[in-house]
Amino acid sequence: MTEKIVIALDVMSGESGAEASLSGANISLERNGNLYFHLFGDQATIEQHLTKLPKLSANSQIQHSDFVVPMDMKPRQALRKGRKVSSMWQAINSVQENHAGGAVSAGNTGALMAMATICLRTLRRIDRTAIAAIWPTRIGETIVLDMGANLHVSAENLIDFGFMGAAMSRVIFGIKTPKVGILNIGEEEIKGNEDLKTAATIFREAKMPLEYIGFVEGDGISKGLADVVVTEGFAGNIALKTAEGTARQISQLLKDAFNSNWRSKLAYLLLAPSLKIMRQKMDPNNSNGGVFLGLRGIVVKCHGSSNALGFAHAIDLTARMIKNDLVNEIRKDLDIFYKDPMSEEIKATSISSEVGK
Amino acid sequence: MTEKIVIALDVMSGESGAEASLSGANISLERNGNLYFHLFGDQATIEQHLTKLPKLSANSQIQHSDFVVPMDMKPRQALRKGRKVSSMWQAINSVQENHAGGAVSAGNTGALMAMATICLRTLRRIDRTAIAAIWPTRIGETIVLDMGANLHVSAENLIDFGFMGAAMSRVIFGIKTPKVGILNIGEEEIKGNEDLKTAATIFREAKMPLEYIGFVEGDGISKGLADVVVTEGFAGNIALKTAEGTARQISQLLKDAFNSNWRSKLAYLLLAPSLKIMRQKMDPNNSNGGVFLGLRGIVVKCHGSSNALGFAHAIDLTARMIKNDLVNEIRKDLDIFYKDPMSEEIKATSISSEVGK
Repeated sequence: MTEKIVIALDVMSGESGAEASLSGANISLERNGNLYFHLFGDQATIEQHLTKLPKLSANSQIQHSDFVVPMDMKPRQALRKGRKVSSMWQAINSVQENHAGGAVSAGNTGALMAMATICLRTLRRIDRTAIAAIWPTRIGETIVLDMGANLHVSAENLIDFGFMGAAMSRVIFGIKTPKVGILNIGEEEIKGNEDLKTAATIFREAKMPLEYIGFVEGDGISKGLADVVVTEGFAGNIALKTAEGTARQISQLLKDAFNSNWRSKLAYLLLAPSLKIMRQKMDPNNSNGGVFLGLRGIVVKCHGSSNALGFAHAIDLTARMIKNDLVNEIRKDLDIFYKDPMSEEIKATSISSEVGK
Repeated sequence: MTEKIVIALDVMSGESGAEASLSGANISLERNGNLYFHLFGDQATIEQHLTKLPKLSANSQIQHSDFVVPMDMKPRQALRKGRKVSSMWQAINSVQENHAGGAVSAGNTGALMAMATICLRTLRRIDRTAIAAIWPTRIGETIVLDMGANLHVSAENLIDFGFMGAAMSRVIFGIKTPKVGILNIGEEEIKGNEDLKTAATIFREAKMPLEYIGFVEGDGISKGLADVVVTEGFAGNIALKTAEGTARQISQLLKDAFNSNWRSKLAYLLLAPSLKIMRQKMDPNNSNGGVFLGLRGIVVKCHGSSNALGFAHAIDLTARMIKNDLVNEIRKDLDIFYKDPMSEEIKATSISSEVGK
């Protein structure tokens, strides 16, 4: 018998409630036989749903919590009211206490990040955690980070993001030497601020299990130029939401086009199977889940409005990261980089150039 | 006889050459009878094209220039080599000397901005020029600025961008009180850095011909929440290019869907007229042209690879801005704001809060 992968699920915090999260866990359980869930939330509600989900019922235990962090509560208030007693905190804490390998929640991002940082703490040498998104591209998927945990970051933060993203790419997609790029407003080396240029120099010279490919522009993400794209959180968040908005806008225009007359309605019927494939490729539920990187444990944030398939995808992802021990992969890379005397030299040079700027 | 609107056209600098720019001018001339062109570039080349464009030939004069700024030349080098002698400089200079009301070029953005700033100079009280883009949204069009002229900006720069964008919205779209928003990673007032919050406070309190609607997220642009969205150039540029990349990615997926079997090919034929409408709405040639704001003259940048329709659209836009005297509209608004003692008070408060942060 293989060992079970244990996942802590914050059942209650999302906008879609227990129905979506529990059904998602059930789907993921059917796809990955060896999962076991700790379900955090209102016991009566969860029990009621489990009567319809016998498989999940047989592979889970409920941990009752009285408090659910509201979606619009400020992080500081969430910590004050929800520490220890909320389903969110308890799910994260079960990772901290090694009862679960990772936690999944669709709750309030700010509160989740605050609780995860306080409860799990950051890895040694990491001073900024990052949120990584998986971005569907023309040729596959690209990991983009940070998506908004940090407004402004230093060159060193960007370097750490690159190592963490590359480790995630190896662990999730099995890419041995992920291609890493830095998001910028031009591909030329002279573009962008000093932090970006310093980070580029370090990536180029560091002997790490990644291939640095240079600066990537906004449209380079969807071209799939890199396996990992690093950026500060403000631009990263704007980019992600702009892409989502554009996709929805075009989808609306398409709907209008299909509804405009009987010819186009017939066209829709003929095209439906091919459109289904297209929709699957662009479905946010298939790239659902912001992964928190830089912590001493795995925490995955689902979209607040995730449906069951969205939860299932985020849980699949979490299971893969637990199985392949993402946190230790990151730890090993950071050790290699920060123990290498050449890295010290690169860093010293880059820091002195920053001071002189 | 109405007075002619005179446009200086940098014929040669784009990737598509004289063919696209001159055909575009001819199309725009057919749509707006009262245009007159000063055509800057190689005389022989222009003359050759004009033999096929009698209407443009009758409504233009050629100003020969020996030098064309290459697309990949750095701004500093372009200034050294192209000042006075390039078609780009000469087109801008004819605006400076009041021979033309505005200049249009598809050349190298950095060089164009550098030459425009040096030749035309910035308006009084403006210390950062901005590039404004017209963004097609679900319900119309939104002006977004800055698209990359400035990497980082102050609260005061953002305010100026808002006034300039609002003036442009009035002049181009005839919107009397344009809705202005600030691009941010959340709609809540607590999100974002101090500069954004300070700018928000000033917008809210200033008595100007605009309606401040608050922070707008990346997907708020395509929803058409605001008529004008202001942002610093790094995030603005990343947002624009990400949106373009996403649109191309979906368009590729659609093509694949239409080509996947005989049913989908038939569907394409049925759908073609409706798709044409959709394509027009999303066609970059229909929202072509980055408008340089904050200068003592009108300069419009076409996409480097613009076709004739792209040029025609940028020229239409330029003509409308000349006709409605955009530069003076901006000047008037800046005068109102900076002469209002309350503005001084708001600014003093905001600056002291910045010093104290």
